[in-house]
Amino acid sequence: MTLKELYQDIDKLIDKKVKLQGWIRSQRKQKDFGFIDFSDGSCHKHMQIVYESSLKNFDEINSFHFGSAIEVEGNLVKSEGSGQDYEIKAKKLIVIGDCDDDYPIQPKRHTREFLREVAHLRPRTNLFQAVFRIRSVAAHAIHTYFQDNGYIYVNTPLLTTADCEGSDQMFKVTTLDMDNLPKKDGNCDFSKDLFKQKTFITGSGQLHGEAFALAFNKIYTFGPTFRTENSNTKTHANEFWMIEPEIAFCDLNQLMDIEEDMLKFVVNYVLDKCSEEIEFLNKFVDKTLKEKLTKLVKSKFNRITHEEAIKLLKEAKVKWEFEPEYGEDIAKEHEKYLTEYFNGPVFVYNWPKDIKAWYMKLDDDKKNALAVDLEVPGVGELMGGSERETDINILKERCKELNVDTDPIEWFLDLRRFGGCVHSGFGLGFERLIMYLTGVDNIRDVIPFPRTPSSCDF
Amino acid sequence: MTLKELYQDIDKLIDKKVKLQGWIRSQRKQKDFGFIDFSDGSCHKHMQIVYESSLKNFDEINSFHFGSAIEVEGNLVKSEGSGQDYEIKAKKLIVIGDCDDDYPIQPKRHTREFLREVAHLRPRTNLFQAVFRIRSVAAHAIHTYFQDNGYIYVNTPLLTTADCEGSDQMFKVTTLDMDNLPKKDGNCDFSKDLFKQKTFITGSGQLHGEAFALAFNKIYTFGPTFRTENSNTKTHANEFWMIEPEIAFCDLNQLMDIEEDMLKFVVNYVLDKCSEEIEFLNKFVDKTLKEKLTKLVKSKFNRITHEEAIKLLKEAKVKWEFEPEYGEDIAKEHEKYLTEYFNGPVFVYNWPKDIKAWYMKLDDDKKNALAVDLEVPGVGELMGGSERETDINILKERCKELNVDTDPIEWFLDLRRFGGCVHSGFGLGFERLIMYLTGVDNIRDVIPFPRTPSSCDF
Repeated sequence: MTLKELYQDIDKLIDKKVKLQGWIRSQRKQKDFGFIDFSDGSCHKHMQIVYESSLKNFDEINSFHFGSAIEVEGNLVKSEGSGQDYEIKAKKLIVIGDCDDDYPIQPKRHTREFLREVAHLRPRTNLFQAVFRIRSVAAHAIHTYFQDNGYIYVNTPLLTTADCEGSDQMFKVTTLDMDNLPKKDGNCDFSKDLFKQKTFITGSGQLHGEAFALAFNKIYTFGPTFRTENSNTKTHANEFWMIEPEIAFCDLNQLMDIEEDMLKFVVNYVLDKCSEEIEFLNKFVDKTLKEKLTKLVKSKFNRITHEEAIKLLKEAKVKWEFEPEYGEDIAKEHEKYLTEYFNGPVFVYNWPKDIKAWYMKLDDDKKNALAVDLEVPGVGELMGGSERETDINILKERCKELNVDTDPIEWFLDLRRFGGCVHSGFGLGFERLIMYLTGVDNIRDVIPFPRTPSSCDF
Repeated sequence: MTLKELYQDIDKLIDKKVKLQGWIRSQRKQKDFGFIDFSDGSCHKHMQIVYESSLKNFDEINSFHFGSAIEVEGNLVKSEGSGQDYEIKAKKLIVIGDCDDDYPIQPKRHTREFLREVAHLRPRTNLFQAVFRIRSVAAHAIHTYFQDNGYIYVNTPLLTTADCEGSDQMFKVTTLDMDNLPKKDGNCDFSKDLFKQKTFITGSGQLHGEAFALAFNKIYTFGPTFRTENSNTKTHANEFWMIEPEIAFCDLNQLMDIEEDMLKFVVNYVLDKCSEEIEFLNKFVDKTLKEKLTKLVKSKFNRITHEEAIKLLKEAKVKWEFEPEYGEDIAKEHEKYLTEYFNGPVFVYNWPKDIKAWYMKLDDDKKNALAVDLEVPGVGELMGGSERETDINILKERCKELNVDTDPIEWFLDLRRFGGCVHSGFGLGFERLIMYLTGVDNIRDVIPFPRTPSSCDF
């Protein structure tokens, strides 16, 4: 039985014999009895184990090492002590797996910087128990939302020979011996490689997602994504997870409806299933977390154009580090101001085309792209989406303007020739979402084993 | 409204006006009326649209191209014709996106080989609609099973600097310019690379999964996996998806219970949610499919040791291509015989250690590994798992024997020093599962955009 199962059936189990296996999170040793703070990782709650000197191996129990795996059998009873509602009176208590004395996780507060150095052990701490349980539940919320709403989950490929995203942002992948590359005309001879071509890991499943949306109507991807950015910030990692829904017969307004509906569903789901984790994080990480999430679910997201946003920013009585300008991107400080101004999430749509991607649909006067970013308090940009250009001629022109080689994406252009239709999609960075849901402000602390420049350990 | 939503509410919608957007799957044109076989990809079922010459644009409708995206408004009525129960009498019927005449998908039977060449369009055919809808539903079944049973979903990293799986099976990953690699002592100078080390894409999340199982009790991964194998068979791809559950306080017998329970849940879920797709595949792909799946759900899986399996094979009155031998692996033909002999799935456990991996627990006389393969009819090996070695000294010995460098996996060895416990896990190849669930016998036809040697198109 796990602790989670025990708590689910606690009324039936009171005064019954139970058997649990888990770990010692702390221990108070007395002459005639002792207490163990026990957790098996199955839920946020711990359990107090009381053991008495009447146990045959009492002395041995009093010498247990912190962190050891133990098995306990005993009666579950209401606790008379303060600090917990229940406890187990041990009848049998043995060590299954001992813990060496140099165990880095001690029953005290560790810095998050230190815990990153023991990424294989940090999930045993209360903070990372909460973060990674929320991560798991949020992932399932996302799958549940899309599946219940008729979307097909598509596993788009990661390996690709098309570099239309800009190959300098993509990792190259090879089976060749890099100490001894085959050469042709002075360059690497990729015809000797497994795919007989230069190959990359893609940074997006969108193009492939479009092919499936035009067959299945509504689809989503959810998988790992890679960027080579040599950037050491709190919000960048070289490997992260992304969700990319794509919807046929859907315009920009409908897309915003879907983004809003989905985000509210996910937040609500996590509030419902992870109430203890949220309480914990609200207490120790971000005292505004619970209020922020609860408010989001009930709010109506604001929608303003990029032009309106710039106007607002220009009118603001704020000394900007970067002056806001029509036609230009907005900075972190602007995102922050906008979410504070609206006191909640805000969609900014109709962006100057020059700062947006080649595949986005242009408005009638070809000035703006029908793109939308969702800005949320505390995190900034959480989702980015757009209507897709459906006119093959405009699309080809845009590729030309932006030096996108269309040869490897002829198939993508085909989608405009064979029964194309208005369609839209967005990308949601999963780690950004987890930061939003937990209040944790560094991406390294919401990924199990983060990969950032110079750092690919474990 | 999607077709799926329409069929869900069909009783309420009869004789009501409906509006749909989707594609022409075929069209029969007459002088005074015509029929369109309409699908929007939201479900397996299509809808018949009837249009009459009373429509203003009748001539235009009669010149619609096959494959075009259309919008229809009309009354949903019970059909008097044979072949369908309902139809829509069009009041308005327009083209949203035309389809060029060279559309490769024509309303006739195409070979699967041909359809692989148009992987961006094949999801529009009935076969791939069924396969990829089942793939999506099966993925959700897997998430639902594990989440409902208290497992934590863990996104283990793909980028790794440890090559303990055998780096010849792993893709190398770099940000360096491969036409002009920096050199040091004649070799590639990886200290100039993003992670300052030689980096790979991993072929398994198991090691990282173990770290999380020893914190959260029960965890699973579900993500893409890569192998460099230069092997052109029906069951090998260089990129595929894998599920890797890992369970603390779980021995080999309990692991088999979990594998059996999970597989039955997933098959049952798919039979329930995809009955139309299964009927279709049963009719056109594998006439034993439905019976096979239905039987599996009710059966009790057999369990035999590797030694017993070899004995059975040796006693069989079969002329083998590969003679079965104690101490050796079993071949495809042996797997087939065993599943036919037991007329269903069979677990083969306790394998000779020399043909199994270094991290698997050895039995007391150190002859066998506590490993288990699940063999299923039609596919062969579907899952492979084991108890993990918990004794750090035996583990180090095994690494030495098998030339596994332990330096980059010191953290993994730590898990044995700090509160280790009996734990087990298995790997399930997602594509193998989809082949089993659909009866489709080539892995290229169950992956949206397959990557195999020399083939990384789209």
